[in-house]
Amino acid sequence: MKYGIAIFPSKKIQDEANSYRKRYDPHYALIPPHITLKESFQADDDSIHEIVTELRQIANQTNPFPLSIHKVSSFSPVTNTIYLKVEPVEELMHLNKRLHQGSKIPDTQTYAYIPHITIAQKLSDDEYSDVFGSLKMRDFNMEETVDRFQLLYQLENGSWTVYETFRFGKE
Amino acid sequence: MKYGIAIFPSKKIQDEANSYRKRYDPHYALIPPHITLKESFQADDDSIHEIVTELRQIANQTNPFPLSIHKVSSFSPVTNTIYLKVEPVEELMHLNKRLHQGSKIPDTQTYAYIPHITIAQKLSDDEYSDVFGSLKMRDFNMEETVDRFQLLYQLENGSWTVYETFRFGKE
Repeated sequence: MKYGIAIFPSKKIQDEANSYRKRYDPHYALIPPHITLKESFQADDDSIHEIVTELRQIANQTNPFPLSIHKVSSFSPVTNTIYLKVEPVEELMHLNKRLHQGSKIPDTQTYAYIPHITIAQKLSDDEYSDVFGSLKMRDFNMEETVDRFQLLYQLENGSWTVYETFRFGKE
Repeated sequence: MKYGIAIFPSKKIQDEANSYRKRYDPHYALIPPHITLKESFQADDDSIHEIVTELRQIANQTNPFPLSIHKVSSFSPVTNTIYLKVEPVEELMHLNKRLHQGSKIPDTQTYAYIPHITIAQKLSDDEYSDVFGSLKMRDFNMEETVDRFQLLYQLENGSWTVYETFRFGKE
């Protein structure tokens, strides 16, 4: 089964992200707005239990950290993806690193980690220019605290279901 | 904010349910296939923390129980809703009851609890007769174990995000 790990921001940020995703992101209906912490990986029923144990240890060793969003950015020219840029605070970068270094968790990281919330993707070049042109001038002012991450699995239709929540700090 | 409590069955059951929901359930994109344990209720940021504490206590006191599905049923003539009928085992009925009796959890139950996974709703009378006519003859044979429930909140677009997972038994 295919699993992934993500942070869901607050309803406020999700509602804001969805106002763009609804029009510009074909994945709008497959998963709520999120920050991917770990790209999808395969795990069978046995190994996922060991991975869950390891994820719980990692969550226990993580302290809540700030989530700050001030602007949009893009992965152009690689892809026409526009995203809310999440400030790469040390705790977030460290958490991402930890989620690729476990003894059971597969290391699926292939690129440098750029924390973000996708709000538009698979745009035509013209759409991309229009949307990014209007959004890049906007200031965003979103600040909150992250205190958990979620392990999800993917269904056959491409949508994601949460399997388990991991809250930071000692339970 | 509007919250709800649900059980997500395994990927296998969700994929099966989605094969019908895709065509017959306008809520298909808003939430994965689920068994509602508690209808939506309002809670503010302060009270949800107390409710979470109470939910954790309830989960600690709950043992894993069997989830069995053998046939479809319907809420007709009240509504043209078709669902996978979930066997009302004692543990499930008790859990539902507990989730309406807390000191902090609001009692939102207005009807007798009928555990189910909706696969079709808001059908025209003709569609309903067609779909239910063909499904009611089918035997389903789904058996698994439930070991958790999820607290979700609703976004402005009507979709649901998981806030926290509650696994049964002592942590």
